[in-house]
Amino acid sequence: MPMSGSVEYKDASPEVRAVFDDIMATRQTDWINNFWKALARDPLTLKRTWEAIKQIMAPGALDALTKEMIYVAVSVTNQCGYCIASHTAAARKKGMSEAMFAELMAVVGMANETNRLAAGYQVEIDEQFK
Amino acid sequence: MPMSGSVEYKDASPEVRAVFDDIMATRQTDWINNFWKALARDPLTLKRTWEAIKQIMAPGALDALTKEMIYVAVSVTNQCGYCIASHTAAARKKGMSEAMFAELMAVVGMANETNRLAAGYQVEIDEQFK
Amino acid sequence: MPMSGSVEYKDASPEVRAVFDDIMATRQTDWINNFWKALARDPLTLKRTWEAIKQIMAPGALDALTKEMIYVAVSVTNQCGYCIASHTAAARKKGMSEAMFAELMAVVGMANETNRLAAGYQVEIDEQFK
Amino acid sequence: MPMSGSVEYKDASPEVRAVFDDIMATRQTDWINNFWKALARDPLTLKRTWEAIKQIMAPGALDALTKEMIYVAVSVTNQCGYCIASHTAAARKKGMSEAMFAELMAVVGMANETNRLAAGYQVEIDEQFK
Amino acid sequence: MPMSGSVEYKDASPEVRAVFDDIMATRQTDWINNFWKALARDPLTLKRTWEAIKQIMAPGALDALTKEMIYVAVSVTNQCGYCIASHTAAARKKGMSEAMFAELMAVVGMANETNRLAAGYQVEIDEQFK
Amino acid sequence: MPMSGSVEYKDASPEVRAVFDDIMATRQTDWINNFWKALARDPLTLKRTWEAIKQIMAPGALDALTKEMIYVAVSVTNQCGYCIASHTAAARKKGMSEAMFAELMAVVGMANETNRLAAGYQVEIDEQFK
Repeated sequence: MPMSGSVEYKDASPEVRAVFDDIMATRQTDWINNFWKALARDPLTLKRTWEAIKQIMAPGALDALTKEMIYVAVSVTNQCGYCIASHTAAARKKGMSEAMFAELMAVVGMANETNRLAAGYQVEIDEQFK
Repeated sequence: MPMSGSVEYKDASPEVRAVFDDIMATRQTDWINNFWKALARDPLTLKRTWEAIKQIMAPGALDALTKEMIYVAVSVTNQCGYCIASHTAAARKKGMSEAMFAELMAVVGMANETNRLAAGYQVEIDEQFK
Repeated sequence: MPMSGSVEYKDASPEVRAVFDDIMATRQTDWINNFWKALARDPLTLKRTWEAIKQIMAPGALDALTKEMIYVAVSVTNQCGYCIASHTAAARKKGMSEAMFAELMAVVGMANETNRLAAGYQVEIDEQFK
Repeated sequence: MPMSGSVEYKDASPEVRAVFDDIMATRQTDWINNFWKALARDPLTLKRTWEAIKQIMAPGALDALTKEMIYVAVSVTNQCGYCIASHTAAARKKGMSEAMFAELMAVVGMANETNRLAAGYQVEIDEQFK
Repeated sequence: MPMSGSVEYKDASPEVRAVFDDIMATRQTDWINNFWKALARDPLTLKRTWEAIKQIMAPGALDALTKEMIYVAVSVTNQCGYCIASHTAAARKKGMSEAMFAELMAVVGMANETNRLAAGYQVEIDEQFK
Repeated sequence: MPMSGSVEYKDASPEVRAVFDDIMATRQTDWINNFWKALARDPLTLKRTWEAIKQIMAPGALDALTKEMIYVAVSVTNQCGYCIASHTAAARKKGMSEAMFAELMAVVGMANETNRLAAGYQVEIDEQFK
């Protein structure tokens, strides 16, 4: 049932529309991507997830682009096709250049490699890191 | 055999010492952490991995701290205890404040959550993201 | 070679047919899904896997629907597209309502989030949990 | 910095104490486990995470024990030591018997196995599951 | 409850003892490692898992050492501390040299890296590989 | 942006062509698969990754086929569709028979299962494995 339950704006309840409106206003876009239309099947999760993301992704001690690239790093590590596509697009929109993307990928790749070398060699945590 | 094969500086071959020296010079420290001492069991992997990391983690289109936080994001996603400890320490040394750490964790947590919501709801990639 | 080696009932050996027959009888269906047709390339793995699943998924201390939802939770966490589709369908057939699906997804998402918060904050296990 | 920043009740701000109080009241306990004490380093994440968990884990279409077992299933799949210990304890407290635990583990193990068989055999999703 | 339910040989039921005896006979050892003593809490899972492993790990088209190294590769990828320790020990016992271990780690590390590069660059499968 | 930035041989810089030429010469093929064409967007990562793979995958203490199967084992565990397809094809080209593939899958599946049983039962590492 991939998209069968996905909710379009025109069919949405006032509760769901309020979230959709806030997404579009916050992002300054005029469309809703499939992730939110799918979550709208469960208005409670839609609202809770959007509010959490709105709070978390707002610029703070880290700027919005850095946060978006961290999102991409996690999504790539988890092999989430949808999230890679959507957050890479979002990062580009926020200013990620081709050079930044290339370096992001290089770090993500290397971290995934050394994570396993550390595990496989059964490396103990240094006192200095505790 | 957690550390049994780990190589101390005093016992290292000239080849391994050269890498250890470069690590300390590059990082401006006077000690080698356990990860590199473990990899030193295989001088080829030690050298290749260090040279790759040195190249990848150098400031470029992304600054060194951003790269270190991306490293933490991947390590946390993979539940690599050693890597979380060492790269969190490295990020702090490069200037990650408590507020930045808190926001980093929040983004990593949320990305791991929505990665699964996207998968579980079987969301299809929007045309706009292709 | 995605499906090239997959085995259809009409082409199956008596050994494979016996497993296919048992699958259909146990599940009260008249067709075999692609997973089993693929495994049939290796009759030993087909038989061992089916017998294990038949034993494990039978109602016991946990009912069949709860087991199926746990299967979905694991499959979503692992980003296994095939398994998400097949086990979500199976759970619906066994009675999972839209509300149950929504709550299942919410728990899976949150668990994936807090798993990383616990790792990233390097939380030590409380004595009370040991 | 595993626990260095963890916040004890006596040192907590009113904002953090309010969350700690709600955790103890909701769970009918008189102590706070390390996870929340660690998150308290970031009051915003503490509050958001607790409120989300409180909402998500409350009995609904799924009962509280089923939700707790799903939490364990995810935590085991992700190899999160802290989460396995804490949520297994929570599930026992909510009534998970040894037999239920054994079946939970069997399903989680098998799902992790077949997730990889489906991927490795490159099984295509059946039309019936779409 | 890490080991509380673990079953020692002297306390085991005849059913569990039969499995323990077969493990020791097959492996030509006189002790049982903690994994099996833990699984013995659920005799059904103990028996099913042992019989599956005995069948799967026996030399066939692949020799026993190759299989053990594949086991290590998976365990390292999943960050399973117990499995890394036990299967690395098993592989050494079956003849894995230090040089073989080093190459195994190098391949596992590199595969984990390129898995993410392929995902992050959203590489499409070549016709030649279908 | 799945393939938009992918670089064809005819459009490649001399630097990228040199890597493409070495890939084809080393593998004795006359085409470049999509992975390398995508990486070519970042010549530095292309060169570093190819040189690392060339070094790591060359026959040594482990033969080329064993290394390729380990690559498949990791890729299957990580659910990397591209990597499963490409490395399964590579392994077949290097001599992996249907029987070897079947045993490889069986080991990978079982290892993924017992990795979770070890974690879920919170099994402590035996002294003998340390």
